This record gives sequence, structure tokens and C-alpha cells, in this order.
Amino acid sequence: MYKFAIIGAAGYVAPRHMQAIRDIGGDIVAVLDPCDSVGVLDKYSMDCLYFREPERFDRWLSKNHVDYVVVCSPNYLHDSHCLMAMRSGADVICEKPVVLNERNLDNLLEWELKTSKKVNVILQCRLHHAAIDAKEKYGSRNGFSYINVEYNTPRGLWYRYSWKGDIEKSGGLITNIGIHLFDLCVWIFGAHKKECKYKVEISNHNQSVGHVHLEAAIVNWDLSTLNAPSKRIFFIDGFSVDLTSGFTELHNESYKKIISGEGFSLEDARPSIRLVEALRNV
Amino acid sequence: MYKFAIIGAAGYVAPRHMQAIRDIGGDIVAVLDPCDSVGVLDKYSMDCLYFREPERFDRWLSKNHVDYVVVCSPNYLHDSHCLMAMRSGADVICEKPVVLNERNLDNLLEWELKTSKKVNVILQCRLHHAAIDAKEKYGSRNGFSYINVEYNTPRGLWYRYSWKGDIEKSGGLITNIGIHLFDLCVWIFGAHKKECKYKVEISNHNQSVGHVHLEAAIVNWDLSTLNAPSKRIFFIDGFSVDLTSGFTELHNESYKKIISGEGFSLEDARPSIRLVEALRNV
Amino acid sequence: MYKFAIIGAAGYVAPRHMQAIRDIGGDIVAVLDPCDSVGVLDKYSMDCLYFREPERFDRWLSKNHVDYVVVCSPNYLHDSHCLMAMRSGADVICEKPVVLNERNLDNLLEWELKTSKKVNVILQCRLHHAAIDAKEKYGSRNGFSYINVEYNTPRGLWYRYSWKGDIEKSGGLITNIGIHLFDLCVWIFGAHKKECKYKVEISNHNQSVGHVHLEAAIVNWDLSTLNAPSKRIFFIDGFSVDLTSGFTELHNESYKKIISGEGFSLEDARPSIRLVEALRNV
Amino acid sequence: MYKFAIIGAAGYVAPRHMQAIRDIGGDIVAVLDPCDSVGVLDKYSMDCLYFREPERFDRWLSKNHVDYVVVCSPNYLHDSHCLMAMRSGADVICEKPVVLNERNLDNLLEWELKTSKKVNVILQCRLHHAAIDAKEKYGSRNGFSYINVEYNTPRGLWYRYSWKGDIEKSGGLITNIGIHLFDLCVWIFGAHKKECKYKVEISNHNQSVGHVHLEAAIVNWDLSTLNAPSKRIFFIDGFSVDLTSGFTELHNESYKKIISGEGFSLEDARPSIRLVEALRNV
Repeated sequence: MYKFAIIGAAGYVAPRHMQAIRDIGGDIVAVLDPCDSVGVLDKYSMDCLYFREPERFDRWLSKNHVDYVVVCSPNYLHDSHCLMAMRSGADVICEKPVVLNERNLDNLLEWELKTSKKVNVILQCRLHHAAIDAKEKYGSRNGFSYINVEYNTPRGLWYRYSWKGDIEKSGGLITNIGIHLFDLCVWIFGAHKKECKYKVEISNHNQSVGHVHLEAAIVNWDLSTLNAPSKRIFFIDGFSVDLTSGFTELHNESYKKIISGEGFSLEDARPSIRLVEALRNV
Repeated sequence: MYKFAIIGAAGYVAPRHMQAIRDIGGDIVAVLDPCDSVGVLDKYSMDCLYFREPERFDRWLSKNHVDYVVVCSPNYLHDSHCLMAMRSGADVICEKPVVLNERNLDNLLEWELKTSKKVNVILQCRLHHAAIDAKEKYGSRNGFSYINVEYNTPRGLWYRYSWKGDIEKSGGLITNIGIHLFDLCVWIFGAHKKECKYKVEISNHNQSVGHVHLEAAIVNWDLSTLNAPSKRIFFIDGFSVDLTSGFTELHNESYKKIISGEGFSLEDARPSIRLVEALRNV
Repeated sequence: MYKFAIIGAAGYVAPRHMQAIRDIGGDIVAVLDPCDSVGVLDKYSMDCLYFREPERFDRWLSKNHVDYVVVCSPNYLHDSHCLMAMRSGADVICEKPVVLNERNLDNLLEWELKTSKKVNVILQCRLHHAAIDAKEKYGSRNGFSYINVEYNTPRGLWYRYSWKGDIEKSGGLITNIGIHLFDLCVWIFGAHKKECKYKVEISNHNQSVGHVHLEAAIVNWDLSTLNAPSKRIFFIDGFSVDLTSGFTELHNESYKKIISGEGFSLEDARPSIRLVEALRNV
Repeated sequence: MYKFAIIGAAGYVAPRHMQAIRDIGGDIVAVLDPCDSVGVLDKYSMDCLYFREPERFDRWLSKNHVDYVVVCSPNYLHDSHCLMAMRSGADVICEKPVVLNERNLDNLLEWELKTSKKVNVILQCRLHHAAIDAKEKYGSRNGFSYINVEYNTPRGLWYRYSWKGDIEKSGGLITNIGIHLFDLCVWIFGAHKKECKYKVEISNHNQSVGHVHLEAAIVNWDLSTLNAPSKRIFFIDGFSVDLTSGFTELHNESYKKIISGEGFSLEDARPSIRLVEALRNV
């Protein structure tokens, strides 16, 4: 039975990881979170250790074997937490975006080499059947597409005042939520050129509108966290690819892939990390 | 529509309050929590304000009307949070134990007088049908009973290292969880005498065993947070009163009572607060 | 003997307040700081209470009399802390900038009326002899001046990553440090017109260069926290007014004024608060 | 020029380390503290990096060379911080008590072996001239002494409510302050036997009185943090050895020893760590 440790166990997405771990028969043996609201653990593991201080968790890791460290901490710490995990001899399962800047990827790749461990990146959109279909239809063809993305994930006012609303901690809207849609686009239509050609027309804390040229598509995005129905629709040359539903179960799917050695790699994540970094630094 | 503000919105019990507020048609307008994992709010209120700092929340309260402030913060802060709420002109709904020490009650009672506001104490056990039946059966009769309480609420290791395991913050096991069972006993069988006659035989962070003389009963308790099935059983003169199930829905019931003016008062809570304070200070 | 409580006792400027309190024969009876590095207190008061949580400090204030609450917390909390103090029946001594936005002043003025208490604002520059001389020379005359301000207070890299470098918490360089120089200028040369005429040419986290039209002067400023000698020089029509030295003792002077009822008021602070707010929101 | 990084830079004892580093010509290149009140740094180093999160500091350490990491964090974290430092390739200078429990020493010794790095323990009392004299006089002789230790370091009420008053974080009075006096005694008079023969008569948060049998002495101690004059007096067979003055300069002395390779080792610290652990677990 695989042993898992979770960094960020009090956070919003942690229960999806706990559920996925249970579904693959894994065991949660330790968690870290400076916030002690981790009672949800009782649904999944009664003898799981809890650490409040990163240093003590790290020290424990140095003396105990875990197979996977799950990183679902604030984005700006992913980097350090992946390093902490690999150094201890564990593979990593890291929430999106795996890092905020492309240069952080190179550092993690060095640590992968040094430790022979792997960072598995959660890119659950790529596992959505509608996305897979689109990849098949458009990915291998010799064409150029015009895409309109309408992407809204409603979030309350708290979002702005949590770490997710702090651009230095989350990377901001384009990075924290946009990573989903931009990753899908570059996965299917290829990355942007060396010099990224794009325009951001609206850039608020709760909405981003703009367009960008990718290898085989121009993408117009309208991304928001408005109090309006959730939607994740990609209009590709007029045809809609709809990921609005079927999103929450994809963590389970991700875990199955990961434990069978087919998790997404740091290099898989690179093109979209590079893109959101470019779009962020307007 | 009543307006509610919640202190401790990232905590474990907060969603039950949010649910109960929705069920009575209330509106959550603001929350406070130093921990920003409050994404659960999106299920209940999209335009709710979020405050991380108590001072700023307090300042907001001083300028805005809310009908009820819900206090589900760590126990040692209930006191201060009830005061903050009443001073702002709001009634209070406070999680158990409303305070850690009886002297704190007196302070709050003064503030009730000064502000003409009320602290409604959550004592959800008293609303459980099995408890109501027992109260009817034993409460008014002229007898004396022998009670064995078997009370286990399983909690993982995190419990010990969260504020709930810190006796200065939670009051410890007898206070934080025991309040449920002791409140029921004194509600039905009357308080202890001025000098509390009791013995605590086991007192660990996860188990407490002892007995205490009440007005019309001797209560043997075995209270724990062990990794064993949940149980809340009172054997009264050999007959079992079982509250093991039907517990989680009682917050809704509590809220209905409160908004119709029948919430439990500080004086209602006094006998059990006094008892757990005595038992805690062994 | 006056009783003082200090909010922000672990911060950099707190010891100057402690010293000033001792020098006027005051007594420090309670302090608040979430950071518990308050050992410096032992030099000033051995029986001073220490609070880590604002709520508990506030509750204590509600039951105990202090004459002055000293507010030297992060700027964005001054507002709430002044309110907390006045509501408890204490006068306030508040570090600069007393608030971040002019609208916050109006709220505090209401509370002054409601409580008959006063917020004394620390504007120590105005007590510097060189400033007093300049005020006398230029303040009452009918002229117009051209001013170059060279103002550098060297700060290490930590500054950028502390709350002082977070514009939402400190107001940024123009507000947190610039308040000194802009206050002096508007004090002597009058406020800016309703529509503020200014230009900010450089605006980094550690340097701000620009100019602004005041009633009787145009001010060119070069404000920085660079690793270079400290300087606070105002060249007024070519004549230098130098406040570089003699700065640290001005807290004592401020306290003497305050306890004799001559502390600077919220209205005294208004023109410079308004100006830095305008310059900040470029 | 040696490069130093400091963990716990906002704490009370940090400036003594900064001063000692400057006096030996060292360079402070990075500091870590979750509390950002680190302005004191500006007296010592203007281009020193500041980290608020341990993980990011650790990551920085993994990419940059420092010669010494100074550990002056809360005691219960010394252990983890020493490990963090050695793993990064740095030697360590650790405040007293180096660890809370003897078993932690063994773990650190393993890491010393694994990394070929050294933990230098600050035991500044041993460098006090009066202590050196006493060691010479009593250390090598074949006798048995009766010792009365009167040790008071006055501390205000804050002490009790800071981490220093939390026995899980500091080890309590006997450990946090008593380590000084017990270390001197075992250094001069030898350790206690395998089974520690002792009695603690008074054990409050601000006073500890008791006696213990060492190899060549019986030590009666009266240790406190009362609001009374500071004293550190050892009456050995009626003769007084007085360390009351000359204490603060010993950090400089310690650093000189350390950089010349003569710092105290983990094994040097073992007997007193073992003793305070025994006395603590009454």
C-alpha cells in the first residue's frame, strides 16, 4: 500500500486528494498545514500524523519513508515543497500550477535528476473526455483554428483576500485558474512562438480578457471568477468543446495515471507555465 | 431576511452553521478567520465579506448592522467574540462551550444587560429526541439514578496537536467534548452541590474516566476520542438512552429555536460550565 | 501616573515609545503583539500584561482603564486600533501615517465625537528645530518657493518583504516614509489644490521621484531607502533645511506635547494624508 | 570572510549574534523569521536576504553556500533547524539548549557524520572567567561539594505567555534558563548517575527549587524569573562563584572559539541536556 503525505491539508482542494488516495488504496500517513482545521482527515485516516511547522514535517520526512508527497499548498511554495519531498526520497504529486515561473522548472528538473524522483503535475483537464476528443480531432491535423474560450469559475469575495488573490502567492487569475484553459490550448494547438504575441484587454482581479497566438490557433479568452454560472467552454472554429461538468472526478483519474507511472511531467507542464508567465507580466 | 456574520469560518463546525443559516433563510454577510481556507462559503454566499484580522472585522461590525454573529472560534476566544458581537448591536449564537470558566459568564451577562442583546448557546444535545424523552421521564420525578455514560467521538492524531488538544485554548477533553454529556446530565438530573464530589480516575489527552455526584444522580463517565466506533450512550438505571445518531442535524433545529426567541441562554449553560470547570481543575 | 497600553510592541519603533513613556513618568500596563518577541519590555516594565490576540486585549481594555493607547502596528490597522482604543475610553497616540486614506479620518473623527477622546498623531518632523525655523521663515510670508527634497532612509532588503513593503499594508514608500517629508511641506507651504497637480517620474519599491504643486511651492522630491547615507534635506529656494540628524529624540518631545494637551490632531494630519493618498494612486 | 545565515532574526538574542558576527568580521547574508520585525538588521547588513517562510529559506540554502547557520529559534525547533543547516552544507551555531531531549542529540550526531558538518553549541557560561576559575579549582580534585545556586533572571509577565513559557516549545524554566546553571555544575562536578537522584520542591512557571546529586556534588538550586535583581551565584562549599555580571559579552567570546574550531560540541552538551530532561519530567 502506497504511503502518502499531504502538504496543505487544510486547503480547499485537499479533500479531493484524500478521496483519490483512498480510491487507489493509498494510506495518508502525515500531513502539514500551519492552519489546524484538518478535521476532514478523520474521514480518511485516523492515525495520520499532523504537523503545523514545515521544519518538523521536513525532519520527520528525513527519517520516514513515504512514497508520494502531495503538494497542495499556496502556489508560490510548490517549488520549495517539491524539493523538500524529492530530497526525502519521495515522488511528488503537485497541484497546478506546479510553479509560477519557468526558471523554477529547471531547478526542479535538476532535483529530479539528483534524486531520481519525479514530480507528477496535476493537469486534470487533459483527462476530461471532451478534451481528449478535441486533442484527437485537432492535435494532429495541419490546420489553424480560431478559439473563443469562455471560462468562469464563480468565487466569492473571500477569493480576492485569500492567498489566491495575492499575485505574489498565486500568480493571479491568469495563473491560478487560467492555467487550466491555457494548458489545454497549448496541449492541443502547440505553444506560442519564442516572442509571445498577445494582448490583454481586461485585467482585473476577477476577470481577464485577451487573445494570444499559438502555433496552430489564435485563442480569445474570457476568464473570470464572477458570480455567474460556472462554465468551461472552448469554441473551436465555431464548434463547442464543453468541460463545464465532469471536472471534480478528474483527481481520481489523475491518481490512477500517476501510480501506473503515467503522470504528467514537469516538461509536460512547461509550455503552459511559460505562457501564463508571459501573460502575467504584462 | 436575517443577516449573519461568522467568526471561525474556516473551522470544522462552520459548515453546519452555514447550512443552518441557509435553511432558515438567513444571509451570511461577513466572516472572520485568520486562516483563509474559506472556500466552502461559495456554497452558501457569493457576496459575503471575508476578514482575516479581528480588528478589521470588528471595525466593519461597528459600521454595519448584522442580526446575529455566530461564534465558532477556538473556545478560549468565545468570550471576547461574544463581547465584540453584542457591543456591535448583534445577538450572538455561540458554539459550546460558551466559555471556559464560570466567571466569564458573569462578564457576558453584564454585557447582555448593557447592550440588551442575547448570547444564544448551542446545546444541541438537549434537542435530541432521545434526550427530550429522558428529560421528561427522569426530570420531574423524585428519584435518584445511577448513570453510566459511554461517550466516544473518534478523532485522529491531529486533534492532540490542534488548538483542541491545547488545554489553555479548548479546556481539554472534559470541556471540549465532555460538555455535551455533562450538560445533558445536569439538565436532567440537576447540578452538583456547592462542593463538587467527584473522582477522575483516568485523565489522558484522549480519554477521561471518572464519576461525579449530581443532585439526583451519580454519573460514571467514560469519555474518549479513540479510534473506535462513535457512541453517545447514557445507561440510566440500566436503561440506555442513545444519542449516537441524529446528531449532525441538530444545528438546524438549534437555529429554528434561536430565531423564534427560544435559544438557550447563558444561565442555561451555567451548571454544565461550572461542572466541567470543576472537573478540569483536578 | 498615566497608564499606557501599546499595540505593536514587538515592532521597530515600539522602543522609542517605551522610552518616551518612561521619560514622562508613564506606566506601561499592557501590550499587544501577535509576535511574542517583546523581551525589550523588561527594560521598561516588569508587570506589564502581554496579549497575543487582539480580541483578548480588546476585552481586557473593556474592563480596565488606561489613559493612552499607543498604536504602532502596521499602518493598515491604525484605523481599527484607534477605534478600539477610543471605544474603551482611552486617548490615542498613533504612529504616522495615522491612516492610509482620507475617508478613514472622517470615521475616526466621528469616534472622537462619540467618545470625547482624541487621536494624537505622531508627526515628529514638525518638532525638529530646523523645521520650526523653516515654518517661521516661510509659513507666514506671501511668496512661492521651489523646493528640492533629498530624502533617503537606508533600509535593507528585508524592508521590501516585510509589511512595510506591501502597499496594501503600509501604503508603500510614498506613504510610509514620504509622509514625513510631504507633511512638512504642506505644513509650511500649504496643501495642494482640490485637483492635485503632480507627476511621479520614478516609482519603485525603494525610490520615488516626482514633483507636486502645493499652495505656495512646487516640491521636487527624491525619496528612497537606498543603501546610501541617511539624509533628510529640503532645499528651499536654494537654502538647505537639514533634518538629517536629531530625529530619534523627537518621540520624547512628541509625548511631552501630547500629555500637555498639545498633540497633533487628526485634522492636523489631514492635508498630508490626502496628499500621499493622491500620489499613491497614480 | 565567513558567510552567516540566522534563523530567528527577530528574536531577543539575535542581536547578540549579529554583533558577534560583525566582531569576527563575518557577513550576514540571509535571515529567516516568520515575524518580520527584523529592522535591527540594518545596523549589521544592508544586503542581507530576508525570508519569512522556512521552506523558501531552505530552498535558498540548497542553492547558496553559507559557512555558518546560526540557530536562535524557539527551542523545540533547534533540532529541525540544525538538520536543515547541515544538510545544506553549513556548520551550525546553535543557541542553548541545543535540543530538548537527549534522543534528539543522537539524531543530530548522525547528521554530523553524514554531512561532515558540526553543530557548535552556545554554552557561554563556560567561558565566563569565574566559571573557568571554578572549573580549575574543583574540576580535577578528588572531593565532593555542596552547592547552593541562586539564579534569578528577571522577566516580565510576557515571558509566561510567549513561547518561552510554553513547556512544549521551550522545555520550561528548568530547561530554558536552568540549562545555564546545570551545565556549569555538570561541567565542573560531573554528570548525575544513570538513575538521577533528585527532588524538585517548587516548580512554578517562574520558580524552580530543588536538589540533585551529581558525581562530585549535591546541588541545591533556586532558579527564578522573579522581578528581583538579577543574580547568578554558585555557593560552593560556602565560597561564592559569581557570574552575575559579564554575561552579555560572552557571545563574542563564543564566536571566536567557534571560528577557530574550538566550539562546544553536541557531546559537550549531552550531560546537561540529559539532566534538564530528567528534572523536567517530574
